Amino acid sequence: MSTIIDDLRKGDVPQWLLQTARNENLQPERLVESIVRGHVVIPQNRCHMNLTPVAIGSETRVKINANIGTSPATCDYENELQKVKAAVDAGADAVMDLSISGDTSAFRKRILEEFDITLGTVPIYDAMIGLDNTEQLNFSHFMRIMEKQAKEGVDFMTIHAGLLKRHLPLVEKRTLGIVSRGGALIAQRMKHQNEENFLYANFDDILAVASTCDITLSIGDGLRPGGTCDANDAAQFGELEVIGELVGRCRAANVQVMVEGPGHVPLHLIEENVRKEKTLCDGAPFYVLGPLVVDYAAGYDHIAGAIGGALAGMYGADFLCYVTPAEHLRLPSLEDVHEGVIASKIAAAAADLARKRPDAVLRNLQMSQARKSFDWDTQERLSIDSDKFSRYLEKVETVSSGVKTHQACSMCGEWCAIRRLQ
Amino acid sequence: MSTIIDDLRKGDVPQWLLQTARNENLQPERLVESIVRGHVVIPQNRCHMNLTPVAIGSETRVKINANIGTSPATCDYENELQKVKAAVDAGADAVMDLSISGDTSAFRKRILEEFDITLGTVPIYDAMIGLDNTEQLNFSHFMRIMEKQAKEGVDFMTIHAGLLKRHLPLVEKRTLGIVSRGGALIAQRMKHQNEENFLYANFDDILAVASTCDITLSIGDGLRPGGTCDANDAAQFGELEVIGELVGRCRAANVQVMVEGPGHVPLHLIEENVRKEKTLCDGAPFYVLGPLVVDYAAGYDHIAGAIGGALAGMYGADFLCYVTPAEHLRLPSLEDVHEGVIASKIAAAAADLARKRPDAVLRNLQMSQARKSFDWDTQERLSIDSDKFSRYLEKVETVSSGVKTHQACSMCGEWCAIRRLQ
Repeated sequence: MSTIIDDLRKGDVPQWLLQTARNENLQPERLVESIVRGHVVIPQNRCHMNLTPVAIGSETRVKINANIGTSPATCDYENELQKVKAAVDAGADAVMDLSISGDTSAFRKRILEEFDITLGTVPIYDAMIGLDNTEQLNFSHFMRIMEKQAKEGVDFMTIHAGLLKRHLPLVEKRTLGIVSRGGALIAQRMKHQNEENFLYANFDDILAVASTCDITLSIGDGLRPGGTCDANDAAQFGELEVIGELVGRCRAANVQVMVEGPGHVPLHLIEENVRKEKTLCDGAPFYVLGPLVVDYAAGYDHIAGAIGGALAGMYGADFLCYVTPAEHLRLPSLEDVHEGVIASKIAAAAADLARKRPDAVLRNLQMSQARKSFDWDTQERLSIDSDKFSRYLEKVETVSSGVKTHQACSMCGEWCAIRRLQ
Repeated sequence: MSTIIDDLRKGDVPQWLLQTARNENLQPERLVESIVRGHVVIPQNRCHMNLTPVAIGSETRVKINANIGTSPATCDYENELQKVKAAVDAGADAVMDLSISGDTSAFRKRILEEFDITLGTVPIYDAMIGLDNTEQLNFSHFMRIMEKQAKEGVDFMTIHAGLLKRHLPLVEKRTLGIVSRGGALIAQRMKHQNEENFLYANFDDILAVASTCDITLSIGDGLRPGGTCDANDAAQFGELEVIGELVGRCRAANVQVMVEGPGHVPLHLIEENVRKEKTLCDGAPFYVLGPLVVDYAAGYDHIAGAIGGALAGMYGADFLCYVTPAEHLRLPSLEDVHEGVIASKIAAAAADLARKRPDAVLRNLQMSQARKSFDWDTQERLSIDSDKFSRYLEKVETVSSGVKTHQACSMCGEWCAIRRLQ
């Protein structure tokens, strides 16, 4: 089987790609060139039939992912499906199933049947479910899981292949060590078995599976900082160098690849973090979790994450993994999912405007014009969450030249500055 | 009467200033020097007895203001007092009474009696209440109002003295024109009477009142952009130049002064906006509203404002006026006030960390250490909103070496990375 990059190199441009280019206001040739260079990915498993693909990378709108999935404490797949719906309704571009309990395969089947959204997984989770300890976790078992998920139709997979034995002493210097679930599994196994990360050692086999179903690899950052004190340290950047090497191997195999990033990063280190990824990974799309710009906003980490995500997006991050108000505290509720997606979309919107994306410039301008003309319907339609807009809006009657109107909102009423100067 | 700057120049350092310096981890001499140079202000009306003063400016923590007050549509002072309480409880450093209906004086009396928080006003609002049009608004009436508020104990006052006749043609080029209530009043009067802004023309009289009660002037930006499309334009920066001149006049009169700023500003223009203020206004504290980094987040403008506020704070803004989820839609509810203050505090916290304020660095570090050791009580105590933290937290039992613990939260349970590597 050939990947999309194989096809594009041969000059075979599929019909759906023209639509994706239109969605991004890009010339198809330009999008093709960016995909072939590896600066844009369009995750799309060959077995995923009912998908509306999205482009992720430079020159495209910043995209949003919502994590859903069970935990050992809470395993209710009907509720998780509701969360997928909440994420899709709020405008997520992709969802990742991060389930770590229950029949994950049946769950993903439902997602793929009921939604047309891009789906990602972390196959090492499924590989670990049911095992007693990481000593039982071996590469052949991992491969069976990855192949199974590939055949299900998963579009992109997180592979923690950049974390190596030589990074472990660097982790000792950290306050918070390793906070990535996948990274912790790999690190524990490397320590106990005193062997190299099997995802790195067998990366060619992973590439072969990815190539077969045209899966986009998302190289996980097992050493993402879990506190701002650990950001941009030798451990994180050491892993990123290896990730850069893996990006090169993906490209040589014509497998689409993106790179995952932090985590907790103070505002003043975000630019360095993004630029480092773009340099070490030769422009590969950067997929960041937050980043959270302060450590003690639990309950409001969607806001801390939106601040970091907006800034990361301005500097070149391409794909924002949402953070919900439940981060660090519990599995998110339906409402948490909604709040998380909206906060990330605001961050993405801010980044798109800063990057001067023509459609972002236009939407902001139209909103301002609608404000100027008190066109509430257009404002509602353009709003990030039209339901909340209409729920919150309190229009008040004002009198202008003897004529009653419903022009102003209840904050200023007749004192509305725009109304005054009309 | 002498102002605090008069006193400090004479070497009279009041006792309370030592405590303010301690609150900021600053040497008193350093704080005194910054106040005398005008890089820090401590708004404190000589008639305001029951006040815990806060320092605003370079080298101090970024501070938060919450706007409260009535509108023509909603005039319920008991409810507004509840909002002051909500703002104080959430951690606001100051409140501004922006009431534009009812008996504002009686309301402020209640605030000053019941709270020890810094209080600001926009006296031109009171001056306009009860008038039919801006033609009736004249400087002697304005002065009576300002003097009355000064005697009440108001600590800082917004004066829209920088907006001049020559700026009005620049406003015509904008999409949204003028969105500041005070700016619109002044502009309307200048147009109708074809005369210069009376706040500018009579600024020495304003300085005299400010000097008498030691009121801090906050020079309002009547031309703050109301849409990202109007940010950093000739109108805004034209007014800012005049504000810079007024800052010089305040300093010459030993009157403390800060400068108000936008508004709606896209991410990539925030740095220029802040640096321009610091340059044109010779390091005067910068007090920004948001800024909102996207125009269509109504319902979530507290998040759009937190993104802008964090970035502005990193570049040097000193005082963040909160934005609530109700912005552009209605007068905020109690819950909106709470959400607005918390979002601004997260922005301020992010900026303080980026500015490497020692107490911010420490609090983040302590939070990470508490996470590492599963010390939930310390995490709750350090959190931005301890109530929400405890309401959200779902601890789950995990088994470690045969011993049950309550270590992990329900997101990961036994899969918790930190727990795994312990």
